[in-house]
Amino acid sequence: MADAYAPTDRTRLRRQPARGSYDRDVVHGILDEALVAHVAVATEHGPLIIPTTFARVDDVVYLHGSTANRVFRAAAAGGDVCLAVTLLGGLVLARSAFHLSMNYRAVVVYGRAVKVRSAAEKRRAVDAIVERVRPGRAAEARPPTDAELRKTIVLRLRLQEVSAKVRTGGPLDDEADLDWPVWAGVVPLSLVAGKPVPDGPSLPTS
Amino acid sequence: MADAYAPTDRTRLRRQPARGSYDRDVVHGILDEALVAHVAVATEHGPLIIPTTFARVDDVVYLHGSTANRVFRAAAAGGDVCLAVTLLGGLVLARSAFHLSMNYRAVVVYGRAVKVRSAAEKRRAVDAIVERVRPGRAAEARPPTDAELRKTIVLRLRLQEVSAKVRTGGPLDDEADLDWPVWAGVVPLSLVAGKPVPDGPSLPTS
Repeated sequence: MADAYAPTDRTRLRRQPARGSYDRDVVHGILDEALVAHVAVATEHGPLIIPTTFARVDDVVYLHGSTANRVFRAAAAGGDVCLAVTLLGGLVLARSAFHLSMNYRAVVVYGRAVKVRSAAEKRRAVDAIVERVRPGRAAEARPPTDAELRKTIVLRLRLQEVSAKVRTGGPLDDEADLDWPVWAGVVPLSLVAGKPVPDGPSLPTS
Repeated sequence: MADAYAPTDRTRLRRQPARGSYDRDVVHGILDEALVAHVAVATEHGPLIIPTTFARVDDVVYLHGSTANRVFRAAAAGGDVCLAVTLLGGLVLARSAFHLSMNYRAVVVYGRAVKVRSAAEKRRAVDAIVERVRPGRAAEARPPTDAELRKTIVLRLRLQEVSAKVRTGGPLDDEADLDWPVWAGVVPLSLVAGKPVPDGPSLPTS
């Protein structure tokens, strides 16, 4: 397996190419850290986006959703899909408003999704998504029944046309602004897990 | 101004309508907390998504980006746009794999974006985006020059066809699974700001 994905017309970065990467490890690292992907399809009513959980297994991304979901139905019907994952790393407070920025690691995948028909692959995909959300959980949770699997669409999106984009570090102010009298630097951001709350009356559900 | 947006064919929630909201305050609250939106357009090469900063002002969302960006160019040309914002609230660890879920607050906006031509409105939009990232910053940072504003596309997307979806609370396991021997509940997630790092040699930039 090559160490990098080949750039295509859709994934070649035109702006700030130094921030781009096709490196397999970089792409996989971002996908494996993210809990949510945004998936877009084009329909006769315009583009639709849905946020969804997912998991990467080798060079495949698995998505699962309800058979009633419009985005999943359109993707399962063979339409082009764009999947985007964005991890925020920090607020980049430049001295000039123009250079205000964010640090982030992002991946975009283009392709056509395939509806998984094999019950065994569906199970593997669902297990991978459960493991992604909570390592070890697939072995502990009550496994999906055949009826539950039938109500679930699982899509396979091959990692082929894919790129990463990463911004790190401090502000990129113009030389002339370096004396502007304002604090400049980075405020790091991270997604932090809090104290677990056990199921019970303190967790009203909507 | 009405207190709620009117549902349309695109925004009417078909699944789990109890989680949906068209309430103006709910929609605005989610948009005002999010730092990043994912914006999709449909092109002849399929759907494209870009993550971007944004700001809401009254019933408008402002986006800004480079004039070289393909998504902004397609949106500025009058194509349909879908904008999605997702705030993760927690991992919902159900006893069954099938009911594994996430708590989230999400907004989806459909519409056509308009390219802002007035320099004054462009300034207001850029100020609003700077303020969104860091309240008070628009007055302190070096303001954009006319040349910088010319290099920036500002898009105005009216909040008209818009809905929110909110999941809160604990797992929704089947009655028969309530004795399954595994911890069940919610692991809260939040985006947390760390200790600011001043600009300098410790912040190599890419």
